[in-house]
Amino acid sequence: MTSWIRFQAADGAVGFGVLEDDRVAEYAGDMFGDSHTTGRERHLDDVTLLAPCVPTKVVALWNNFHALAEKLGKAAPSHPLFLIKPPMSVIGPGQPIRRPQRYGGKIAYEGELAIVIGKRCSDVSVDEAREYIFGYSCINDVTAVELLNEDPNFAQWCRAKGFDTFSCIGPAIRRDFDWRRAHVVTRLDDAERQNYPLEDMIFSPEEQVSMISHDMTLMPGDVIACGTSVGVGSIKDGSTVSVSIDGIGTLSNVLGAGR
Amino acid sequence: MTSWIRFQAADGAVGFGVLEDDRVAEYAGDMFGDSHTTGRERHLDDVTLLAPCVPTKVVALWNNFHALAEKLGKAAPSHPLFLIKPPMSVIGPGQPIRRPQRYGGKIAYEGELAIVIGKRCSDVSVDEAREYIFGYSCINDVTAVELLNEDPNFAQWCRAKGFDTFSCIGPAIRRDFDWRRAHVVTRLDDAERQNYPLEDMIFSPEEQVSMISHDMTLMPGDVIACGTSVGVGSIKDGSTVSVSIDGIGTLSNVLGAGR
Repeated sequence: MTSWIRFQAADGAVGFGVLEDDRVAEYAGDMFGDSHTTGRERHLDDVTLLAPCVPTKVVALWNNFHALAEKLGKAAPSHPLFLIKPPMSVIGPGQPIRRPQRYGGKIAYEGELAIVIGKRCSDVSVDEAREYIFGYSCINDVTAVELLNEDPNFAQWCRAKGFDTFSCIGPAIRRDFDWRRAHVVTRLDDAERQNYPLEDMIFSPEEQVSMISHDMTLMPGDVIACGTSVGVGSIKDGSTVSVSIDGIGTLSNVLGAGR
Repeated sequence: MTSWIRFQAADGAVGFGVLEDDRVAEYAGDMFGDSHTTGRERHLDDVTLLAPCVPTKVVALWNNFHALAEKLGKAAPSHPLFLIKPPMSVIGPGQPIRRPQRYGGKIAYEGELAIVIGKRCSDVSVDEAREYIFGYSCINDVTAVELLNEDPNFAQWCRAKGFDTFSCIGPAIRRDFDWRRAHVVTRLDDAERQNYPLEDMIFSPEEQVSMISHDMTLMPGDVIACGTSVGVGSIKDGSTVSVSIDGIGTLSNVLGAGR
């Protein structure tokens, strides 16, 4: 039932700890390795939440839900289909999504489950995968949709989804999370736009970790965005997107005016 | 005329310095920031070269040479077309390329010029871009080609090119390099397979840095692989690929038997 967060205190110091209701028990050490409580407790209102981990890469899946595949008329893939989002794309809860300086087109939200890797892993089996998953968070996998097919010869997935601030992650990393019973709910300025069961995933989190660990070494803090389902839409400048998953919490980010 | 390298000494210590003929003048500090000579000199034979930088991402271009675009019948793009390769894909000169455990298909080499970023940059102009380029190296942008179009709905660029050891970089970072007068020469077991002029690039290095810096923040040590030209081919297990660029040096890597 533990939820881990990263935060910045009023004095600028960055820390991490366990969230219990509206209080944060501060820890020291390595969230994914040896850590211990400092004994210090802070009120949630006294800190600014950061992205709960610092990934070396975000592996983002496409076409991983039966309902969306059916709507798009696409067959289920035989291996997770993914692109890589760079570390600088990551922001935390409450931080603004920035419109790219040279892009005036549509920007889309995608509410998704995020897997957070806890231990370096390479070539692990599905059965072994569970022990490499530290926990789960929410992610808004943001896309500058009009760039995706701008060139007829090359789908620009990394460019359209790789802008700074286009991977919103948080608010916490929930351990011992039963994804089979949870839904992803995405709200755009309080209007519900997505509400889909994680049970509808094509590749389970354990299958994703195993299969992707055969493609590349996954590191502590790395994130796999499990893909989205039906209800994706565009965000107007100034609108707020909130991604909620029962047991993890709600991640909210506004689309700001730019840099 | 300075060439920077990273190395591992016999005692396991990792260092960096300036290469002069077969001698390494050791430096301390930050290669991209404040650094100073330690006064210690080593013989090149006494150290193992490492990849000359530790990128947070490798941005790899597709379709950036007129000759290859013409051969493939593709129009020149209006913006660099790229995918992102993860940090764990990077190896240095002499380190083996590893065949992925579950992949028995063709593995291709692509000899390319690598741009190494020296300063954090975001939204810079073409005129400003030059001051953000630390120098240039060679890269072999390796591809598991049969995965690329395995799924009819999604070109798997990041998967096919993102495996551990699939970004060979080195041997050195050459500063004050005049790319306009240089050729990329790729040899497979001593048979020349690529020999193309960098002058044929569609987007110059300065244009690449400027345009990509509008897509994402580039960090010190980040690498842009400038794309390849004609002559790409596959590597047999046990064969050696050597990428040479006048003024930078030769990067050689063998395709090993696997993990």
